[in-house]
Amino acid sequence: MQTLHVELGERRYPIFIGSDLDPQTLLKPYIHGQQVMIVTNTTVAPLYLSYYKDAICTLGKSVSVCVLPDGEKFKNSEHLNLIFDALLEASFNRDCTVLALGGGVIGDMAGFASACFQRGVNFIQVPTTLLSQVDSSVGGKTGINHPLGKNMIGAFQQPQVVLADMAQLKTLPERELSAGLAEVIKYALLGDIEFLAWLEEHMDSLVARDPELLAEAVYRSCAHKARIVANDEKEQGERALLNLGHTFGHAIESYLGYGVWLHGEAVATGMVMAADLSQRMGWMSIADLERTKKIILRANLPIVCPKIPLNEFLAYMSHDKKVLNGQLRLVLMKQLGQAVITKEFDTELMNQAILANQQ
Amino acid sequence: MQTLHVELGERRYPIFIGSDLDPQTLLKPYIHGQQVMIVTNTTVAPLYLSYYKDAICTLGKSVSVCVLPDGEKFKNSEHLNLIFDALLEASFNRDCTVLALGGGVIGDMAGFASACFQRGVNFIQVPTTLLSQVDSSVGGKTGINHPLGKNMIGAFQQPQVVLADMAQLKTLPERELSAGLAEVIKYALLGDIEFLAWLEEHMDSLVARDPELLAEAVYRSCAHKARIVANDEKEQGERALLNLGHTFGHAIESYLGYGVWLHGEAVATGMVMAADLSQRMGWMSIADLERTKKIILRANLPIVCPKIPLNEFLAYMSHDKKVLNGQLRLVLMKQLGQAVITKEFDTELMNQAILANQQ
Repeated sequence: MQTLHVELGERRYPIFIGSDLDPQTLLKPYIHGQQVMIVTNTTVAPLYLSYYKDAICTLGKSVSVCVLPDGEKFKNSEHLNLIFDALLEASFNRDCTVLALGGGVIGDMAGFASACFQRGVNFIQVPTTLLSQVDSSVGGKTGINHPLGKNMIGAFQQPQVVLADMAQLKTLPERELSAGLAEVIKYALLGDIEFLAWLEEHMDSLVARDPELLAEAVYRSCAHKARIVANDEKEQGERALLNLGHTFGHAIESYLGYGVWLHGEAVATGMVMAADLSQRMGWMSIADLERTKKIILRANLPIVCPKIPLNEFLAYMSHDKKVLNGQLRLVLMKQLGQAVITKEFDTELMNQAILANQQ
Repeated sequence: MQTLHVELGERRYPIFIGSDLDPQTLLKPYIHGQQVMIVTNTTVAPLYLSYYKDAICTLGKSVSVCVLPDGEKFKNSEHLNLIFDALLEASFNRDCTVLALGGGVIGDMAGFASACFQRGVNFIQVPTTLLSQVDSSVGGKTGINHPLGKNMIGAFQQPQVVLADMAQLKTLPERELSAGLAEVIKYALLGDIEFLAWLEEHMDSLVARDPELLAEAVYRSCAHKARIVANDEKEQGERALLNLGHTFGHAIESYLGYGVWLHGEAVATGMVMAADLSQRMGWMSIADLERTKKIILRANLPIVCPKIPLNEFLAYMSHDKKVLNGQLRLVLMKQLGQAVITKEFDTELMNQAILANQQ
């Protein structure tokens, strides 16, 4: 087991990364009150709920459960309210703990509920997908979607502790494994050319779910994100680099309807668009653009999206949270492995990069 | 005009208190972006909306408006969503400002919306009721109600600036003026026996809306709250004293249905119950209990509530946020003008204090 600390001053917390972790020992110091609400979904509950519930009951805690339907399309205020209903119906108090057992959607919703319930209660994350292990376990971004935009309503809420157990990735569907690898690749593309070479060496074993290599990929990804988040918790600057591929990706997700494409799939194609625009701006070579596409393809991810009318694509992009004073900012690559956030791009070249990577 | 600074480190902000304040000059330094959403209600909009809207437009800002129905019963997730809808339909970005123009309900909802929209945007408060001027302008508590409890879902969100204009109290209904005086009296009862004497001297003029005396009452109340909040922003300790009368009051409000009694009215009777229990505990004299009731009555506030079955009253109290590890804590008075938060009270005496102050 490896331990990574996210350094956020008094909100500092550890991420435990390994296989077959013991929740009873690892969670014990981090559950402060007596009441624990496990928030999970209909897919994860049959697989792992009783394991965690029993472990926490053994610690003498009172455990309640809120099982939500599985999928991004349920990441809305209606289903958020189900968590509040469960907390209040079980008379949960301000010293309770909300534990997210599931992927990114569960982490975002349970985290946001814990941020708002009685104006903030304790939060623990047990991410059960590769995507949530490398993405939502670091940084404290929580929230829900709105019909007019993704993650538009939310809060910064740091967990007390995160458990990332590779054993749980055995049951992960292939598409979701690949979606997680999209975010792993993102860390390489935005700031670590050596990690990109490591991924090129090990991508086949990662796709085959080698637990030790997966753990190493999770550790390196989380370490990257933790370093960036520690410098810029509230996304005033550097943290926006983590959105490489996301402005394009959000437009794809929004247009297709949440849940049709997985977040990681949309980000994968979004990264291709960002790389393509970077190449058109003269910042990256065609060879590096091809190298970007190749590693994405090897992770079984899409490098083109369905045909989307340009005006609609741009309208969805304009809802992006990186818009500042009405000015769209994009995360592009000054060179492979070095992302920048910039409003200095050519709109016509951006349009070309969007259209060139559609079916 | 008096200026009070709420000292919260990098979240320090001023409250401007006076009559006929100039919003254009006073707000200008605190509106950072270009987009301003004024959230108000159907009662306040015809009176003051155009005045503030014009002032902010003159600053060259783009102003949108979200008008909610008036009343505590609309302080729920459904109406919170109307604010998010308005923000997204007008393509508001992360650098926008949400301005609350109205009483406590508008302040709580607009503030919570500003805390959650894109995980936090700028917030300005223009409280138009005495209650919101002395209560919600300090401390950053925002939120909405849940059918099972008041203010159960919310966030701590500090404004950039608060404008408390006594001129707006001229149009305030009498019941609402009294409800505001309940919270003013609360500051005296919980920690300032001299302020209580000042209120006893000036209560008739306050009820007659003397603007200079009202401004002084608002300033002294906000100063009290600001001092307590600066010591304990997230209500780990001392801040809970501000809930004098609120645990009983919330039970009354919840039982009757939000909006049947005004919050201040319920707090008034709640403070009588807290004083009554303090007297039964031997901490206060009967004379001081009578003094408490008298100042509340002189503000035209109720000192008894309708008949509520004890078991239901207690059930609503058990949902209170001050419950810690299943143990109810109450704010009582060790003596008149000195509140304490305690779990050391006699339950039987508490029941008597509740029943003794019902019709």
